[in-house]
Amino acid sequence: MALIVQKYGGSSLADVDCINHVAEKVVTARKQGHQVAVVVSAMHGETDRLMTLAKSIQEQPSPREYATLLSTGEQVSIALLCMAINNKGYEARSFTGGQARILTDSRYKKARILDIDADALEKELAAGRIPVIAGFQGKDVNGDITTLGRGGSDTTGVAIAAALKADECQIYTDVDGVYTADPRVVPQARRLNKVTFEEMLELASLGAKVLQTRAVEFAGKYEVPLRVLSTFAEGDGTLITFEENNAMEQPMVSGIAFNRSEAKLTILGVPDKPGVASSIIGPVSAANIDVDMIVQNVAADEKTDFTFTVHRDDYHKAMEILGHISNELGARVVLGDNKIAKLSLVGVGMRSHAGIASTMFKTLGKEGINIQMITTSEIKVSVVVDEKYLELGVRALHSAFGLDAEPSEEFDPQLSRV
Amino acid sequence: MALIVQKYGGSSLADVDCINHVAEKVVTARKQGHQVAVVVSAMHGETDRLMTLAKSIQEQPSPREYATLLSTGEQVSIALLCMAINNKGYEARSFTGGQARILTDSRYKKARILDIDADALEKELAAGRIPVIAGFQGKDVNGDITTLGRGGSDTTGVAIAAALKADECQIYTDVDGVYTADPRVVPQARRLNKVTFEEMLELASLGAKVLQTRAVEFAGKYEVPLRVLSTFAEGDGTLITFEENNAMEQPMVSGIAFNRSEAKLTILGVPDKPGVASSIIGPVSAANIDVDMIVQNVAADEKTDFTFTVHRDDYHKAMEILGHISNELGARVVLGDNKIAKLSLVGVGMRSHAGIASTMFKTLGKEGINIQMITTSEIKVSVVVDEKYLELGVRALHSAFGLDAEPSEEFDPQLSRV
Repeated sequence: MALIVQKYGGSSLADVDCINHVAEKVVTARKQGHQVAVVVSAMHGETDRLMTLAKSIQEQPSPREYATLLSTGEQVSIALLCMAINNKGYEARSFTGGQARILTDSRYKKARILDIDADALEKELAAGRIPVIAGFQGKDVNGDITTLGRGGSDTTGVAIAAALKADECQIYTDVDGVYTADPRVVPQARRLNKVTFEEMLELASLGAKVLQTRAVEFAGKYEVPLRVLSTFAEGDGTLITFEENNAMEQPMVSGIAFNRSEAKLTILGVPDKPGVASSIIGPVSAANIDVDMIVQNVAADEKTDFTFTVHRDDYHKAMEILGHISNELGARVVLGDNKIAKLSLVGVGMRSHAGIASTMFKTLGKEGINIQMITTSEIKVSVVVDEKYLELGVRALHSAFGLDAEPSEEFDPQLSRV
Repeated sequence: MALIVQKYGGSSLADVDCINHVAEKVVTARKQGHQVAVVVSAMHGETDRLMTLAKSIQEQPSPREYATLLSTGEQVSIALLCMAINNKGYEARSFTGGQARILTDSRYKKARILDIDADALEKELAAGRIPVIAGFQGKDVNGDITTLGRGGSDTTGVAIAAALKADECQIYTDVDGVYTADPRVVPQARRLNKVTFEEMLELASLGAKVLQTRAVEFAGKYEVPLRVLSTFAEGDGTLITFEENNAMEQPMVSGIAFNRSEAKLTILGVPDKPGVASSIIGPVSAANIDVDMIVQNVAADEKTDFTFTVHRDDYHKAMEILGHISNELGARVVLGDNKIAKLSLVGVGMRSHAGIASTMFKTLGKEGINIQMITTSEIKVSVVVDEKYLELGVRALHSAFGLDAEPSEEFDPQLSRV
């Protein structure tokens, strides 16, 4: 018997049939002898409906009222799912964020969880009942309703699992696990039985969005075993672990992530002197623009070239700021490009293997794909290329690193579902 | 400067335009220098939507989950109305029932208010803010969400007014006051500037439904001056008072109430002995059927006839029970009629005037309307007639008691809005 926290997203709760299906999955886990606590999002479309209502009244609503409004979406879900579980002969009881004693700070729209008093939930489980908890919400010290920011239901699931010291936190979604690459781009992509938290963080933040980055960080911090799996398809999903065991036997590259949501800005011929990097990036950050990759070329003639990427939405604003900076610094010219794509190899195995980067560059070169920028970290190599080469590049790399084939050990019994 | 509690029902909050209109009314009262607290129902249609969702999952949902589900309707309203008020430059803050510290018992679907700790709301008012409170809901000692039963938002309004010691509780609805009779039946019906609580109770419980009976009782108990007025039309509405001043100058009959929601059951030839009434009504009550009028005729030949009315929905069930009773008691025959109407004259003035009943009977007789049952109380005379005479009877009585004419004193400055 294990203690499992199951989290179901909005697409798993799209309508009454879906809710009954989720209830069936919850009851199945109970029938297998497990204790189960459930965390749910709002029904699909409900949060958007409420946001539209708010927006039609006030452009910038009070964050406190906005949180009070949006939190009703999950409150509807917990009540309906409890009814559906009760209807199958098992006893379920609903908990709003506040009732589950999820204490947060007072940033109403982007609150962070400070503490969870798990007493009430533990009593439910001990009594043989199934607590169903509203994701995405909590309350602050004043008893005000707060929300964790969009997608925060994953974080609630992990936090509840941590508070209950659950054996596993299962995140049910509309994909059946973490893949070596987005299957819409690479048809040969295959599901990973297991990834490390670090790989998951890189894959999640690089566009292979299965889980909210914050939820993964949270799981890592509290060492909550996390499993991503599909609500609608059978299967064991992908287990996310902290262990790096068998690193030598694992493939060096676990997956390939990509995104096309960035834009590139370059300033050429900047005087190469101390402090120049901060005089370029400083004003950009001050304008609340997040900078992702930063590359500075080796200096020649006491001049240097400086390139960085920002989110595509911030491109025009960043170009304007860079224009001012260029004048101040006496730079030669400012260049911009918002038709780029970023490709990344991710894998813990890279740490102990040289040659990954050179294989990557050779593969792209063979396809005639020019590399515009390169950055590396311990478990990742990222390159920026022309947007039009995104699909070609991802598929070529997927083949080159042997990700197309099924791994020899297809099913690891240790990884089977709890 | 007065402290006013305003309560707005679902039809006043049908859509975004309505919500903005309500915000305008709230702000107007503030501009007149008053302190204002607001109580709201769910947006029109929302409670039905949620009830349908629940019913599509489980026929008899857990009352606890049902209350959690339905309470979201009012929670949406408080957030949206706060946004609309904020948008007009006034500061409003929302309170769920729990946040407003409305403590109830644990009968989740029909909870009764035990206590309201008004500290938080008083602080809001003292700070110049407008608290907007979810009607129809509270929390029990365990922190569980409860609902007061359908229409309970009126009760919340009165209870909040009592807790805040408000100068007036204004119930905004889609009618502009209490009328001498339902204007849809009696076109000459006129709005009463003022009625007593007792008259209001009779009028409300007899189908002239403007206010929830429980809310009126609550207002009487805590001596909260209550005013019924329209959200959409200007006017002073109807003030509901406890004073019976000027009773001599007031018309004897304040209004005429009626309903066609009852059915009549008669058992003929019952042995006339002690305990026979309870052996008839007892089993009916035990089946959770509410009995309204009861009439027992004078006994002849040691036999008596016994007639009572029940809600029309309970008619067939009650007839079946009465069949069994009839066999046990050796009664002659059981008769039933679910095509009846009940007409009632209501007025505090009746207490000091004889002849009201005889005028009533003469008026109905002149129209050829046969009276099937009669009951009287201190401020009411009710008769049961064939349903087809309802409209004719009400109009004839309305004329006969001088209710068609405008009263000589059309506007009493004492009754003008605070």
